[in-house]
Amino acid sequence: MEVVVTRRGKRRSEEARAGSPRAPYLDRHVGPLPILSEEGLQIIEANADCILAETGMEFRDDPEILQIFAEAGCDVDGERVRFASGFCRKIIQATAPSQFTQHARNPENTVRIGGSASVFCPSWGPPFVHDLDMGRRYATYDDFTNLVKLHQTIPWLHHSGGVVCEPVDLPANKRHLDMLYAHIRWSDRPFMGAFLGAERAGHAIDMARILFGEAYVAENPVLYCVSNTNAPLVMDSHMSGALKTYARAGQPVACTPWTLAGAMSPSTVAGTLAQVLAEALASLTLVQLVNPGAPCLMGSFASTMSMQSGAPTFGTPEAGQMILAAGQLARRLGVPLHSVGTLSASKLPDAQSQQEATWGLMMALFAGVNVINHATGWLEGGLVTGFEKTMIDADLCGKMMRFFAGIDLSENAQAMAAIAATGPGQHFLGSEHTQANFLSALFRPDLPDNNSFEQWQAAGSLDMAQRANALWKSRLDTYEDPGLDPAIDDALKDYIAQRKLEVADADYF
Amino acid sequence: MEVVVTRRGKRRSEEARAGSPRAPYLDRHVGPLPILSEEGLQIIEANADCILAETGMEFRDDPEILQIFAEAGCDVDGERVRFASGFCRKIIQATAPSQFTQHARNPENTVRIGGSASVFCPSWGPPFVHDLDMGRRYATYDDFTNLVKLHQTIPWLHHSGGVVCEPVDLPANKRHLDMLYAHIRWSDRPFMGAFLGAERAGHAIDMARILFGEAYVAENPVLYCVSNTNAPLVMDSHMSGALKTYARAGQPVACTPWTLAGAMSPSTVAGTLAQVLAEALASLTLVQLVNPGAPCLMGSFASTMSMQSGAPTFGTPEAGQMILAAGQLARRLGVPLHSVGTLSASKLPDAQSQQEATWGLMMALFAGVNVINHATGWLEGGLVTGFEKTMIDADLCGKMMRFFAGIDLSENAQAMAAIAATGPGQHFLGSEHTQANFLSALFRPDLPDNNSFEQWQAAGSLDMAQRANALWKSRLDTYEDPGLDPAIDDALKDYIAQRKLEVADADYF
Repeated sequence: MEVVVTRRGKRRSEEARAGSPRAPYLDRHVGPLPILSEEGLQIIEANADCILAETGMEFRDDPEILQIFAEAGCDVDGERVRFASGFCRKIIQATAPSQFTQHARNPENTVRIGGSASVFCPSWGPPFVHDLDMGRRYATYDDFTNLVKLHQTIPWLHHSGGVVCEPVDLPANKRHLDMLYAHIRWSDRPFMGAFLGAERAGHAIDMARILFGEAYVAENPVLYCVSNTNAPLVMDSHMSGALKTYARAGQPVACTPWTLAGAMSPSTVAGTLAQVLAEALASLTLVQLVNPGAPCLMGSFASTMSMQSGAPTFGTPEAGQMILAAGQLARRLGVPLHSVGTLSASKLPDAQSQQEATWGLMMALFAGVNVINHATGWLEGGLVTGFEKTMIDADLCGKMMRFFAGIDLSENAQAMAAIAATGPGQHFLGSEHTQANFLSALFRPDLPDNNSFEQWQAAGSLDMAQRANALWKSRLDTYEDPGLDPAIDDALKDYIAQRKLEVADADYF
Repeated sequence: MEVVVTRRGKRRSEEARAGSPRAPYLDRHVGPLPILSEEGLQIIEANADCILAETGMEFRDDPEILQIFAEAGCDVDGERVRFASGFCRKIIQATAPSQFTQHARNPENTVRIGGSASVFCPSWGPPFVHDLDMGRRYATYDDFTNLVKLHQTIPWLHHSGGVVCEPVDLPANKRHLDMLYAHIRWSDRPFMGAFLGAERAGHAIDMARILFGEAYVAENPVLYCVSNTNAPLVMDSHMSGALKTYARAGQPVACTPWTLAGAMSPSTVAGTLAQVLAEALASLTLVQLVNPGAPCLMGSFASTMSMQSGAPTFGTPEAGQMILAAGQLARRLGVPLHSVGTLSASKLPDAQSQQEATWGLMMALFAGVNVINHATGWLEGGLVTGFEKTMIDADLCGKMMRFFAGIDLSENAQAMAAIAATGPGQHFLGSEHTQANFLSALFRPDLPDNNSFEQWQAAGSLDMAQRANALWKSRLDTYEDPGLDPAIDDALKDYIAQRKLEVADADYF
């Protein structure tokens, strides 16, 4: 049974790739779609400026940052920093690049970040994993490695990501080294750096230097850092430490306010948008003051909460509205946008998970998001990475790749001769045109069942999650190691061993 | 258990309605989103004109139509009709209204059709129904009545629809009378007329006259007819007969080419679009020649098929591209657009069903579709209406209602005082602003589970389909009969009894 599934999975997947060959990133030819009018955008921008001027933002436990802001002329009062109206926008627009490139060790996987490009990354951060065989359980380094390998097999993913799950069987203060190693060793796509604290960020940059060479890293973005705020209006030293380290190394930082409307920001969309923009402006300004010209992205992780239970909610109408508006705000600011994809609060890869995931990913792409974190796998509000969910979301990513490529208007695609030759009442199944376009005309995802009820019954009456269970196993079975120069591999292992000796156990979480 | 679920379902539903009160239709404040450039649109329009001029369209078994076209100056050759370039567009644009109203017996449920309005209708046509208790089975009139009642309880649906399932326990040539009765009796929303053949269309108009009065029906649209072509480029007399009858009565006709790219049209999007537009233009022209000024819609049911098996596929990237382009073509033509919503090939209300359904409904709304048929319930490529799927899709309709209302920019929604009062590092949960906006700030669907894993486990570890199973039962339990004037009810019953005596058994399917 397993063998049959594997073979079928492989054949189907090869054919699908013929229809939609792998691309290093999505180049959107549809959208973006605006949601706010010029007047609406000006209101949000004026409100963000007002928040920054009157309330300001707190930068906790990081005196260096306070000094940087003071020297730039900001109003620093204890840990509170206030910004004159328009100051942040001026600093950002003076030096922040509107797009840049993040290099992969395999140049074919190098991604463009900004403009019409969208890059899909795996889920980030879940301490649990879920699959249909073993259910929900704490994630291990074995799961982490399997997820890195699994993503490497998915043609529609572009980025290897960062904390694809938290390998809780490794010490919390050392596991970032093992995670970085797994990305470098088992994937040849771009990856993210550890994001908590200056020390771990430094380790990521050191390991990137071993992989790419010191001179190359000095000149080129090769790591990607997500720096969240602690909404409302706070950045702590874990985040600011990493932000400074990456910015100084010329590595991209996604300045990403993380908020749930109703809890960490007002319950209303317009209120949340102003706060998100204020936090993003302050963070982006910090990047540009630390290293003018350093690549950076406005980020937005803005969802909602249940007003009854306080539980986070995803794939909601308000989250969709916020990301479309954030897209407009980022384009006006002139920096790329980082946000999120297939989020869901569901515990299972069920109907809820895909109603919310499809909603989220479509909204992100219609918003023109340039880097989409959590494009696969998220369940349970980010507590879980699901193996079946990963494969189901991957199909959705593939559909997006095809949809956003736009409509082919070539003579072949217009098919006028085929229509004339077929004529009223006939069918196109056997026509020359259909035969000639057989492999490439229509995108073919891996997992939908389109067969008759009887065929579906004969194949075991499986739902999509059960089919995904067979698929991820067959993909891991057929994973191809991209290889790594043994000298680099040894140097990385030596580096990790040395750092592990230096770092005290259980320093902080 | 049942009682608890019912009560909880009812309370949650009441609160949700407080957040998003029922509206008779969706008034879109976002989009529509274009996908083709001006040049691309001109190519498709020129190709459609070329198809109509060179290949033409066949109108089978309906000599009256051939005469109508011949008198209008078209080239009629046997059953084949060819149209001079630009002729159809000229006829349509001269007299077809760009928007109109379809009246419901409860004026609060009257819908606007055209412009920024979108109307959600239930699924149409499935001979089977599915629920988790009894699985897949042939549909009965009992199922039909239950579906009409169930839709009446859903605040996010606007239309009672037509053949919400095929009641196969009733004679095929008489059941249209029973179906119309169920819509009139158990729902007070607008509904559709029977669409096969002139005779059944006449019955629908007679019954509408009993309900609304003859003079009212002569002046106002109160029935809605979907007239499909038999792609490629054929219309048969079942369809043309109904089309003529409704058009002459001034009742709206949605002229809807039905095609699967690769089978009934070219496998390419651009080729299919030209064919769809050609068929729609010819059908709309027929409506306007029969009764200039009669309300009509361009329709498009264009999906794809599996190039391996020939099975119909839904929620595909190409279907999304086609509906966005069809939206542009309809707006340029100046008529409203009819299309489809939550289609899926899945056999179950699983992840596949919602990945495809969410894709389809979002694309339809971003395309600006004015009447969305099959907005709820479709499974198995239209062979099945699912009771759980209906409820899950209904949540999606509700989310759309909220999303497309756009972003509130009122002073309350801007929440500037709340942000200033809360300040950095605090939370908004207990703030005055959050309390004041508690009920209305965020849309609340009925079915997502956002609770913790432990709470979800304690509640039985149900997936969304299982929760939907409890919900549709509780909704049927609490369904409120809108009532009907006993004189009208008796007149309808008499009419139906008389027609049933006249119609021979098993006349045609």
